[in-house]
Amino acid sequence: MNKEVSPGFFGRLKTWGTMWRDIADKVSGADGLVSLNPDLPEEDARKIRAGLDDCLAARGGEVSARARAATLGRAYLSLNDQGRARFLEILARDYATDHDRVRETAGALLDIDGTDFAALQGAEEQMRDVLEPPRLRLLRQFNALPRGIKFLVDMRAELLELARHNPDLRGLERDLRGLLSGWFDIGFLELQRITWNSPAAFLEKIITYEAVHEIRSWDELKDRLDHDRRLYAFVHPNMPEEPLIFVQVALVNGLAGSIQEVLDSSTPSLDPEQADTAIFYSISNAQAGLAGISFGNFLIKQVVERLSHSFPKVNTFSTLSPIPGFRSWLDRRLTEGEAGLLTQQERKALTQATAADSDSETRSAISKGDFKALVGSSEWLRSEPLATALKPPLTRLCARYIVNERRPPRHEGRAGSVLDPVAHFHLTNGARVERLNWLGDRSSKGLSQSAGMMVNYLYKLNEIERNHEAYQGQGKVATSTAIRSLTRS
Amino acid sequence: MNKEVSPGFFGRLKTWGTMWRDIADKVSGADGLVSLNPDLPEEDARKIRAGLDDCLAARGGEVSARARAATLGRAYLSLNDQGRARFLEILARDYATDHDRVRETAGALLDIDGTDFAALQGAEEQMRDVLEPPRLRLLRQFNALPRGIKFLVDMRAELLELARHNPDLRGLERDLRGLLSGWFDIGFLELQRITWNSPAAFLEKIITYEAVHEIRSWDELKDRLDHDRRLYAFVHPNMPEEPLIFVQVALVNGLAGSIQEVLDSSTPSLDPEQADTAIFYSISNAQAGLAGISFGNFLIKQVVERLSHSFPKVNTFSTLSPIPGFRSWLDRRLTEGEAGLLTQQERKALTQATAADSDSETRSAISKGDFKALVGSSEWLRSEPLATALKPPLTRLCARYIVNERRPPRHEGRAGSVLDPVAHFHLTNGARVERLNWLGDRSSKGLSQSAGMMVNYLYKLNEIERNHEAYQGQGKVATSTAIRSLTRS
Amino acid sequence: MNKEVSPGFFGRLKTWGTMWRDIADKVSGADGLVSLNPDLPEEDARKIRAGLDDCLAARGGEVSARARAATLGRAYLSLNDQGRARFLEILARDYATDHDRVRETAGALLDIDGTDFAALQGAEEQMRDVLEPPRLRLLRQFNALPRGIKFLVDMRAELLELARHNPDLRGLERDLRGLLSGWFDIGFLELQRITWNSPAAFLEKIITYEAVHEIRSWDELKDRLDHDRRLYAFVHPNMPEEPLIFVQVALVNGLAGSIQEVLDSSTPSLDPEQADTAIFYSISNAQAGLAGISFGNFLIKQVVERLSHSFPKVNTFSTLSPIPGFRSWLDRRLTEGEAGLLTQQERKALTQATAADSDSETRSAISKGDFKALVGSSEWLRSEPLATALKPPLTRLCARYIVNERRPPRHEGRAGSVLDPVAHFHLTNGARVERLNWLGDRSSKGLSQSAGMMVNYLYKLNEIERNHEAYQGQGKVATSTAIRSLTRS
Amino acid sequence: MNKEVSPGFFGRLKTWGTMWRDIADKVSGADGLVSLNPDLPEEDARKIRAGLDDCLAARGGEVSARARAATLGRAYLSLNDQGRARFLEILARDYATDHDRVRETAGALLDIDGTDFAALQGAEEQMRDVLEPPRLRLLRQFNALPRGIKFLVDMRAELLELARHNPDLRGLERDLRGLLSGWFDIGFLELQRITWNSPAAFLEKIITYEAVHEIRSWDELKDRLDHDRRLYAFVHPNMPEEPLIFVQVALVNGLAGSIQEVLDSSTPSLDPEQADTAIFYSISNAQAGLAGISFGNFLIKQVVERLSHSFPKVNTFSTLSPIPGFRSWLDRRLTEGEAGLLTQQERKALTQATAADSDSETRSAISKGDFKALVGSSEWLRSEPLATALKPPLTRLCARYIVNERRPPRHEGRAGSVLDPVAHFHLTNGARVERLNWLGDRSSKGLSQSAGMMVNYLYKLNEIERNHEAYQGQGKVATSTAIRSLTRS
Repeated sequence: MNKEVSPGFFGRLKTWGTMWRDIADKVSGADGLVSLNPDLPEEDARKIRAGLDDCLAARGGEVSARARAATLGRAYLSLNDQGRARFLEILARDYATDHDRVRETAGALLDIDGTDFAALQGAEEQMRDVLEPPRLRLLRQFNALPRGIKFLVDMRAELLELARHNPDLRGLERDLRGLLSGWFDIGFLELQRITWNSPAAFLEKIITYEAVHEIRSWDELKDRLDHDRRLYAFVHPNMPEEPLIFVQVALVNGLAGSIQEVLDSSTPSLDPEQADTAIFYSISNAQAGLAGISFGNFLIKQVVERLSHSFPKVNTFSTLSPIPGFRSWLDRRLTEGEAGLLTQQERKALTQATAADSDSETRSAISKGDFKALVGSSEWLRSEPLATALKPPLTRLCARYIVNERRPPRHEGRAGSVLDPVAHFHLTNGARVERLNWLGDRSSKGLSQSAGMMVNYLYKLNEIERNHEAYQGQGKVATSTAIRSLTRS
Repeated sequence: MNKEVSPGFFGRLKTWGTMWRDIADKVSGADGLVSLNPDLPEEDARKIRAGLDDCLAARGGEVSARARAATLGRAYLSLNDQGRARFLEILARDYATDHDRVRETAGALLDIDGTDFAALQGAEEQMRDVLEPPRLRLLRQFNALPRGIKFLVDMRAELLELARHNPDLRGLERDLRGLLSGWFDIGFLELQRITWNSPAAFLEKIITYEAVHEIRSWDELKDRLDHDRRLYAFVHPNMPEEPLIFVQVALVNGLAGSIQEVLDSSTPSLDPEQADTAIFYSISNAQAGLAGISFGNFLIKQVVERLSHSFPKVNTFSTLSPIPGFRSWLDRRLTEGEAGLLTQQERKALTQATAADSDSETRSAISKGDFKALVGSSEWLRSEPLATALKPPLTRLCARYIVNERRPPRHEGRAGSVLDPVAHFHLTNGARVERLNWLGDRSSKGLSQSAGMMVNYLYKLNEIERNHEAYQGQGKVATSTAIRSLTRS
Repeated sequence: MNKEVSPGFFGRLKTWGTMWRDIADKVSGADGLVSLNPDLPEEDARKIRAGLDDCLAARGGEVSARARAATLGRAYLSLNDQGRARFLEILARDYATDHDRVRETAGALLDIDGTDFAALQGAEEQMRDVLEPPRLRLLRQFNALPRGIKFLVDMRAELLELARHNPDLRGLERDLRGLLSGWFDIGFLELQRITWNSPAAFLEKIITYEAVHEIRSWDELKDRLDHDRRLYAFVHPNMPEEPLIFVQVALVNGLAGSIQEVLDSSTPSLDPEQADTAIFYSISNAQAGLAGISFGNFLIKQVVERLSHSFPKVNTFSTLSPIPGFRSWLDRRLTEGEAGLLTQQERKALTQATAADSDSETRSAISKGDFKALVGSSEWLRSEPLATALKPPLTRLCARYIVNERRPPRHEGRAGSVLDPVAHFHLTNGARVERLNWLGDRSSKGLSQSAGMMVNYLYKLNEIERNHEAYQGQGKVATSTAIRSLTRS
Repeated sequence: MNKEVSPGFFGRLKTWGTMWRDIADKVSGADGLVSLNPDLPEEDARKIRAGLDDCLAARGGEVSARARAATLGRAYLSLNDQGRARFLEILARDYATDHDRVRETAGALLDIDGTDFAALQGAEEQMRDVLEPPRLRLLRQFNALPRGIKFLVDMRAELLELARHNPDLRGLERDLRGLLSGWFDIGFLELQRITWNSPAAFLEKIITYEAVHEIRSWDELKDRLDHDRRLYAFVHPNMPEEPLIFVQVALVNGLAGSIQEVLDSSTPSLDPEQADTAIFYSISNAQAGLAGISFGNFLIKQVVERLSHSFPKVNTFSTLSPIPGFRSWLDRRLTEGEAGLLTQQERKALTQATAADSDSETRSAISKGDFKALVGSSEWLRSEPLATALKPPLTRLCARYIVNERRPPRHEGRAGSVLDPVAHFHLTNGARVERLNWLGDRSSKGLSQSAGMMVNYLYKLNEIERNHEAYQGQGKVATSTAIRSLTRS
């Protein structure tokens, strides 16, 4: 759910470099780190190591350590991709947990009499200390700098990217994740309603970070902040200029099925006091560096609570969600030639529909029985009979995809989670699969991801706990009757 | 004037209990925890354990877990001292690290080939997981509640008290300290100037928490917030209604030596633009539950920076500090009868001063050579000749006490830290002992703690780093020439 | 309803003088106004006139005019009572409307043909210009200075005082009133709820300005801001640090009759959600300089609206009010010896009550029939039988005083307004006289003003308009049945 | 991007109508005003009159009067152009000053003995009352409504438009102007720096209201809020969502001469700390309804003060201004055939420049001596030699236009103000004409207004007062030596 936002560290050097310069200037001997070769060749890497050692030794006390961190941070920002990768490797390799001391401590621990709880506790305490890698203390220092927390979040975004190909960095990435997950504890987040009166700089970030349905202009954004819309974001008090995650809601009457209708600015806006349904039509994570630290579930629940309070007449809370993996799953099925994917009747209906069709490509696809090519071209969309013939098999297969297709189970004997990531997210939250919407998203993205279908996940307040338990425990997916009959057909 | 602010948990039940009730109400089956016997007898303890287990099992998802935490929090608040001690013991004992699994993991770790770094790292990662006690996850849940962080801070204050006599609670206390020390990372604190325009509720807390020179009325507080005074506090964004630590500064001309003069409201206030000296005359920690998480050094440095910026003419930053341990140290010396504590000349001067003295008690003390009794009574204060005769030996001994008297070293071969806690704090920060002030504090507290003396610790910006290093490393105390000559006399 | 608050202009010179100095410094030639003799003798008065002339001539443009106003303002603040009186006399006499030009213009106007509307309008326009005294432009200049509006408000407070003995100042006072009444238009006022989280500096002013029931300490203030209390103030956006008027409300069950009970801090505070009645127990004007510009009616109505919204269960809005003029009116009646003031039965009851009484003074008063002396001493309060005998005649007379006693009518043929100023205020607002409370105020002030009685004025939303009309039009006072029967007895 | 912001009254009915409905509902009998014919035919006009009468009679007290005002306001908003014109005519005609009473009072005034000051004052006071038209009280009522002040500002904008053709409305317009000019007194305005962090809704208004150099997109706006730019606005505390006037400043090195360079977003932005010059390149009034109430002078002076304080290195404050009237003045001169407008030498240079020119139109224009056609086509811009030949006569004539061309004097014997309105504004403020910039504005607007020239008006702090006096008094225009020599050539 995440886009390329950050202007890269180079852009930020201008801002942060300046902010941190004054702090960095307070410590002597840090001059060596000022004009490094951006590739960070070995002679410069040595300087970085010296700087890290000084910082760890806390020479000159806490305030000097902060100055050193500022110097190191500015050095990091001045490097290019290769240089930063090297910097991170140094941190990962040379400032890791000391394996020998860990083994020593493990040995000592095993020597203790298993009933001497006090001694065991002492040894465990020591083990905890020994396990903590020195780089953790270094990372913490950055948090004392202005906007240092955003620096660390962005550093993790880079680390995640690099660690995909470089396993040596994974330990460092995990350390950073542990740190950030403590600091971004859900208790610290502030739910903010974002409106057309919010700072333009913040709204600009919403435009950039929106990951589900692109916001193409300020006018479009204004429409999404109209009287019958709501946009809520989680914000961290120490990073107030950045959304962490945000959700967009339309207040409507009845379950909305088409995203184009929801986003159509020419629709007259509803008096929100009269709405009975809240449609969550987009939810986007804004910080790549916080991947794996989950806010979405809590955000949805908090917004449901807030809306229930403001609009007592709203009694239905539902998403209007994409089905990002349907088409690629279907294509795999078709390529692998799964038997009986289409019923006889469905095939027949398709062949009949082609008779009236003028398009040669379409005709040829069906004559060859190439269902994949037929669905893959968007040609069927302009032909009423063809679309009508495609609807039954596609909705049926889509319901099967959402509800029944699973990943391999993580633990033996347990059910695997559903394949579709958006479905998995909402099912884990306790929602149920409510309705499939044929042609719910006619955009080219919608057609290529899910043959134009969208789905509603319904959050029923008194079912959420039960649904969550059933899905987490036995892998059971809650569905409406309509969906259930689709999956059984 | 109201000094009774912090009404203890019972008082807070009213506020928090209400706040949390709505959250708690969202989970079913938590009713059992509503009306407990405040003593928490065994049958009720069982209910607590059941609640803790449910919360850990995260039954019903994250939001239910939060509701359960609210229920448990309310239960805790409804208990009396004994009940709360029991609650904490349950947490400490039944939700601790599993020693057997730790030993198993240690065994597995030792079985790994010492050169297989990837395997070692994996095992270490597992060890980290195993070492984390389940109660830590329970504690984190409270942070998601409104004002939950203050709840945890106060819980630690209680724990610290209880753990003094109950070693079983120390592990839990350390866990909580680890959690809080991450959340109260210096990078998250906000430096706030507190003025007469600050909320009365906040100022009331300043009155309550002031620990050095009592604030006896709102009028006195207003004096301390006058044009030529500054009061700065660190505040945490998630606990904005509470100071964490605060420092009081007087802007004056020349080094102030008498706290009574500094606090005298009849002194006309100075145009702060004309001041050349900033006197830090009081620094108080406000949260007992954050003991051991140090903010003082950073606070002083930040305030120095802020003041330098606002008042370019101020070139001297100094404290006016109490010497809390002097008299009790001196009394021990006198009781033990250290030889040569007073010089011949000093004794002679004292005897002569008594000739003119009318007070029989004083005369008898000196005739008996009972220096301890003489200093202990405050009688000498009203006699000019006696005070004059006492000044040389007392200042000399006080300088020795501050600079030379040490605790036993923690690590062999290293110098011990100085005995006086206030001196140790400022020396660690990099200050130097600048001047002793005879009769700097004529209050009864001042007389009984330090025979009425006060001391200035000077923060010289370009010396701080060096002083800190010398004290931390070799235990060397930085002093002015005057102090140096006193310690040598 | 107003107390002596302002620390006088001398106090403010320190603050404002400094603020305005930088502005004043921008204009040359203003030095002459810096060190005036505080008495403002004639040679200094000449300098003031020169400064006023320069300011009026707007020499150097608008910004220079502002600088000159700052200079004149500082000069004014540096004067003593006598000097300021002279300054104001200069403004009043030498910068007044030019009578001759008015007469000229009146002549020209009468020369115009009465049907030539355009010409008439032109002449009227000119008359408006001619009538505007030059001092008005001078006064407006002060508003452009920081806190200039408070300067003008306080200047009017002084003017009102001086104008009582000096009719020459009345025109100037009226000009200033006109100016302020435009600027303090009700549309500009902001209704603020004042709480224990409000700035201490603001709360200190509430303590000072409270005019009905003195607030004797910060503890008492805190009680008045408790959960079941509300304090609302009107504030002007350009004078945000000053309340203009404020009202104190207690949320209770049933009509409160005793102010001592309302203010008793030992009473457990009510859950305000459960209250059915809002008692307005104190309303105080805070700015002497805004006398005659009325905010009270609007404040009460706004607060009623706000409370109705926050507390849907509250259905009764009533005051608990003093009856400031009752005793002095009664004493006049008694002194003048109005026949039949007490009924036979009442006299008899009093005589009987004295039989049991031990106090000689009381006995003698009654034996002499000296009702005035009896009520005047507070001795009757300690005697149950005496108090019981006094209650019927005193309540009866008090009801008569509130409802029937009138000032002479302003316009012939119209009813005069009621004598009691508090009653007049609430009746004009549309309230009705609801209940008399025997011993509602046992304080010495309460006893001396109204023999310890208080009264409830009830604001019944659907009667307000009608009551207001009836009182304004025919002088009819709305009363409850109980009050009505008292006035008829 | 949305340029349609101010939706006119109809749009606002939606917002305000709703806001005011609740207030309006509080008064009975106002129902008649709810569904009027938008043309306001006579039978509906009668209802309006009845409503106005009720409001004036203040039947039911102040709060009812406010409800009636809300009803009347909603009625006004529901009318179309014609209906609103009729509404305003009713106010203007039927609620005007009573001419007969004015004449009566004038007569009475003349009967008074001219030395009886007290009597004269009394009569004048009465004249003031009589002169105040009843509609003024009605207008004031609207201010008590939420956003009522903006309602009145917009009503005046409509009035100004209508009064151009309907003299009967001028008195009402003047009344409203008087009211607004008191409420928008300079002392009440707040100077706000507008940044990219300001509310988008506010920034959208900046885009709409910018009157000098159009802002074509949000990106362009962001450029104008970059580090080396400043945008300041005056805002009224009771209309905080609306700018009243705003100015845009570029911080640069040296006097900027080309607006295209100033606005070019590709220019790297300067470190503002290093700038020595502040260029005021645009100043726009935002409220048509406040025409004639002047804020510009004060705004510039305040911004100069603010910038001087923030950027001590900036020592030059200058505008880069358009010369809106130059070309139309020149065309008049040319049409009238003023003798000697071009010198012999200038004509010769132009003829020579044409030799090399390829464009037939241009050649023909010059051969005919048609200077007007030559300048009017923008063809000369693409020819280097032609532009070179045009520069001397055009700059010379432009300097003459700015400095010497005048309007007829308002008062005999006095100098008239300069013809160019922008020049008049800055000269009145005390600036001097500093430099003419050839091709300073190459936009088509710039070419058609001023043949592409722009001018710098310099604000020299120590000259402002003197320049203002000289211009206001003797009509003397302050100029640089360069400009002076141009006007003399």
